Amino acid sequence: MNLRDIVTKTRSYRRFDESYKIDYRTLESLVGLARLSSTGGNRQPLKFMIYNTPKDCEKIFPYLAWAAYLTGWHGPERGERPTGYIIILGDTSITDIFGVDHGIAAQTMMLGATEAGLGGCIIASIKREELRDEIGLPDKYEILLILALGKPVENVIIEEIKDDDVKYWRDDENNHHVPKRTLKELIIK
Amino acid sequence: MNLRDIVTKTRSYRRFDESYKIDYRTLESLVGLARLSSTGGNRQPLKFMIYNTPKDCEKIFPYLAWAAYLTGWHGPERGERPTGYIIILGDTSITDIFGVDHGIAAQTMMLGATEAGLGGCIIASIKREELRDEIGLPDKYEILLILALGKPVENVIIEEIKDDDVKYWRDDENNHHVPKRTLKELIIK
Repeated sequence: MNLRDIVTKTRSYRRFDESYKIDYRTLESLVGLARLSSTGGNRQPLKFMIYNTPKDCEKIFPYLAWAAYLTGWHGPERGERPTGYIIILGDTSITDIFGVDHGIAAQTMMLGATEAGLGGCIIASIKREELRDEIGLPDKYEILLILALGKPVENVIIEEIKDDDVKYWRDDENNHHVPKRTLKELIIK
Repeated sequence: MNLRDIVTKTRSYRRFDESYKIDYRTLESLVGLARLSSTGGNRQPLKFMIYNTPKDCEKIFPYLAWAAYLTGWHGPERGERPTGYIIILGDTSITDIFGVDHGIAAQTMMLGATEAGLGGCIIASIKREELRDEIGLPDKYEILLILALGKPVENVIIEEIKDDDVKYWRDDENNHHVPKRTLKELIIK
C-alpha cells in the first residue's frame, strides 16, 4: 500500500471481530512508530500503555464514550469490541505542554495499524479520573488519548458533505457513512 | 516505501535546496491526505493555505522561528530556504475547539511529503498576528501550524538519548543529531 491507500483505509472503526487477538509486538511496534514522530522541541513527553488481553480490554472498555452522533448506540456489543488499546499519556514530569504531540503520535499509530491489517478509533472522550483509579495510574501522567484497536467488521463509506451536516450515520445495512468536506472547501485562496 | 520507512525518513528538516520548485498539485495532494484524516466529532474545522512561488515563500519566511536549541542559528540562509508552505488554519465559524486535529493533519501531510521526495518541519512558533496582517487573513481563521517544505539538504541522525538531554545539535560537518528516548522508556508497564 502506498501512503494514500493507507490514509484512505484509515477510517474510524467502532465494530470489531472480538475473536481476533492482537499480538503485543504489533502494538509495541506502533509505539515504535510514534517514537520516531515529531514532538514539540524534541521533548518527547508522551508515554504509552499497551493492553491486548481480553481481561485488560474488558477493564478499559467502560471508560470510553463512542460515536456521539449515533444516538441510541452506546458502543460496540460483546463480540464486536476492541481487542487492543494503546493509552497515550502525557508525562508532566517532562512538561505540562503537550501541544499536538499526541495527535501526531495517534495518527502515526493508526496508519501503522492499518498497514498491520487492523483498524480502530482515536478516542478523546474518556472518563479520565475513573480510568486512572481503575489502572492505578500515578498522578504525574495525564491521560491524553486512547486508541481502540481491533480487526474491523464494519464498512465505512466516505461521501460528500451536504448542507454542512458533519454527522456520520448508519444505513439499514449497518454501513457507516461519513460526510467529508470537499478539497475545494478546505483550500483558502 | 512501507510506512516504517516513511516514518523513519520523516525527520524535521530545516535546510533545503532552494532551487527546487514544488508543484502546486503536490501540495494540494497533501491537503487531500489531510482531508481524509481523523477529526474530532468529524467536524473538519481545518482549512489550508498553499504557497509555492518564490515571492510568496519569501513573504512567509520572516514570521517563523527555527530550531530553538541551535543558538546562533536563526534559520536557513538564502539558498537553503523552504520552497513551499502549507498554513493550517482553524475555522472558528465551525468550532473553537480544534483538539489535536491539526497535529493529525500535519503529520499526515509530512508523511505524504516524504513519499513525494520532500521534507520539512512542522512549525508552531509563528509571529501569528504579524503574519495575519501580511497575508490579510480574516479574523475567523486561527493560524494553528505551518508546514515548511522543500528538498532537504541536511543529514539528520537519530541517536539514543543521554542524561535525559533532548536538545538536538549539529556537528562540525553540519550533521543534525536528534536524541530520542528508547522504546523501553516510552512504554509504561
